[in-house]
Amino acid sequence: MGEPAGIGGELTLKAWLGRKTQNLPVFFAIDDPSRLSELAYGLGWTVPLVEITDPSEATAIFAQALPVLPIFLGLHIKPGHPDPDTVKAVIHSIKTGVELCVTGKAAAIVTNPIHKHIMHQGGFAFPGHTEYLASLLKLESHEVMMLACPGLRVVPVTIHVALTQAIATLTHDKIVEVSRITAQALTQDFGIRNPRLAIAGLNPHAGEDGDMGREEIDIIAPAIQQLQALGLDAQGPLPPDTLFHEQARSRYDAAICMYHDQALIPLKTLGFDSGVNVTLGLPIVRTSPDHGTAFDLAGTGKASEKSLVNALLMAAEIANNRAR
Amino acid sequence: MGEPAGIGGELTLKAWLGRKTQNLPVFFAIDDPSRLSELAYGLGWTVPLVEITDPSEATAIFAQALPVLPIFLGLHIKPGHPDPDTVKAVIHSIKTGVELCVTGKAAAIVTNPIHKHIMHQGGFAFPGHTEYLASLLKLESHEVMMLACPGLRVVPVTIHVALTQAIATLTHDKIVEVSRITAQALTQDFGIRNPRLAIAGLNPHAGEDGDMGREEIDIIAPAIQQLQALGLDAQGPLPPDTLFHEQARSRYDAAICMYHDQALIPLKTLGFDSGVNVTLGLPIVRTSPDHGTAFDLAGTGKASEKSLVNALLMAAEIANNRAR
Repeated sequence: MGEPAGIGGELTLKAWLGRKTQNLPVFFAIDDPSRLSELAYGLGWTVPLVEITDPSEATAIFAQALPVLPIFLGLHIKPGHPDPDTVKAVIHSIKTGVELCVTGKAAAIVTNPIHKHIMHQGGFAFPGHTEYLASLLKLESHEVMMLACPGLRVVPVTIHVALTQAIATLTHDKIVEVSRITAQALTQDFGIRNPRLAIAGLNPHAGEDGDMGREEIDIIAPAIQQLQALGLDAQGPLPPDTLFHEQARSRYDAAICMYHDQALIPLKTLGFDSGVNVTLGLPIVRTSPDHGTAFDLAGTGKASEKSLVNALLMAAEIANNRAR
Repeated sequence: MGEPAGIGGELTLKAWLGRKTQNLPVFFAIDDPSRLSELAYGLGWTVPLVEITDPSEATAIFAQALPVLPIFLGLHIKPGHPDPDTVKAVIHSIKTGVELCVTGKAAAIVTNPIHKHIMHQGGFAFPGHTEYLASLLKLESHEVMMLACPGLRVVPVTIHVALTQAIATLTHDKIVEVSRITAQALTQDFGIRNPRLAIAGLNPHAGEDGDMGREEIDIIAPAIQQLQALGLDAQGPLPPDTLFHEQARSRYDAAICMYHDQALIPLKTLGFDSGVNVTLGLPIVRTSPDHGTAFDLAGTGKASEKSLVNALLMAAEIANNRAR
């Protein structure tokens, strides 16, 4: 479901409408059927909905209708106008999806965007989806976020913190852990036998031998040496500005980035509405579209479903690779 | 000339060879004619050279030969093998170009790349071209670097310093000064009457109302307010990751960036071998290709001349706009 006042619902409908041309895997919504049908009606889209009680029913229905495992909001919600009273249902939707994956009833979960502030107002205690999933799954290790668009995969070592904080909390161990989880996921989830990791520097020109910052020498290079000692194909620290043009991208399977925007600027420059967020190192398969709730677009039908479509396709790809 | 052991010489020859198809303005090299002819011979390129004693002779020669205002290196130089003994000639070449612009004998100077470490070994006291030009021209204000490729112009507020240092030295006044110089140059040099400036945030999502860093609230937003009070079309602080995709780029004429890689990552991702560096706020017109000396490619003829060609075209465009 995601935030019911955001664009998640209409993108789910749009994705279902394009199920044949996009060759999408069978999916079902964990959502409020009445809000979905109202959305479809308002937009003039013909999307038959069929309520299911178990994911196993979805396969037979999917070609003709969007299967919906119902979660009832219990209130009427207007697109663009979020209400903290819906947060419990949103949480229930995520929890249900995770449980269905854990028990093997679903192959993967794709999470539509939630809105941090609304979630907190409604009593949600986690910074975002990823941390909640880690808690539900009782994970102790770092969860790792990979973003992918055609031709580029990036993994930030530090994520949603101030840039000063990202630099201050960058450590040898974090770089090694994130890189290892990434390499493992590239093999297990993406079928790349000997994944090539490009490890970015932090400073301009990767510090130019210490002339412009010492993090490359003190932190990043030793981490790369350890990764190489572990038998991984890790190169770097590489100058960040020349790491993302077409020719450079052909030399690695994923770029390990030192901070949020080092990863997200090239990703969104190249694949603005096609990027997918994948959480690596989870026992279940989880992807999500790489955009927010877009309250300003909600209900207009104008938002692009490309990212959600790619998230669905990638979830299926990973699940298939894991099943092999 | 630039660094004589780098790719500058062969790119100059290549640019001249493409003078007709690229519709290039008349240019002349300030270089050692014997090293240029040896380079051309080694690469099997037919580039007749004609020595000139004054830039006014170049126009009549240019269609048939590359005009060269001679600077003698006084030693034989092998591509890829720099020698600090050439540094005096390199400095003399830059100084000559600047003087010819100041006296109006040349419309613009395009500087081929130099190599910082070699220059320092040879007694050059400046961090780079730009600072040397500022000293020659006795400038007191900040020199401002703009990088441009088709569809994108970026201007970093802080440049060749460690990322921690860039954050620590980011000030209200710097953002205002760089933005004003940029707006003025967009009008004077690029003919844009009411330039639109997009001012990037520093932190992920531009700090999300202070949740991830306070620089947007404390430094950047007040600077933007001052720019708007001065009558400039400045918007921001904008989330850096969504600032550089095609649709976003159509909304501004230049992006003012808070640090080197925030500007250079999108620029080199989009226009790796076509980017041009323009020094704004100078009394003379100066552009340069956006690459280094590339010692590993020097003498092979393989390096792309696209960036130098664009630097020549942009120098002519700016000179023409200023002459209007």
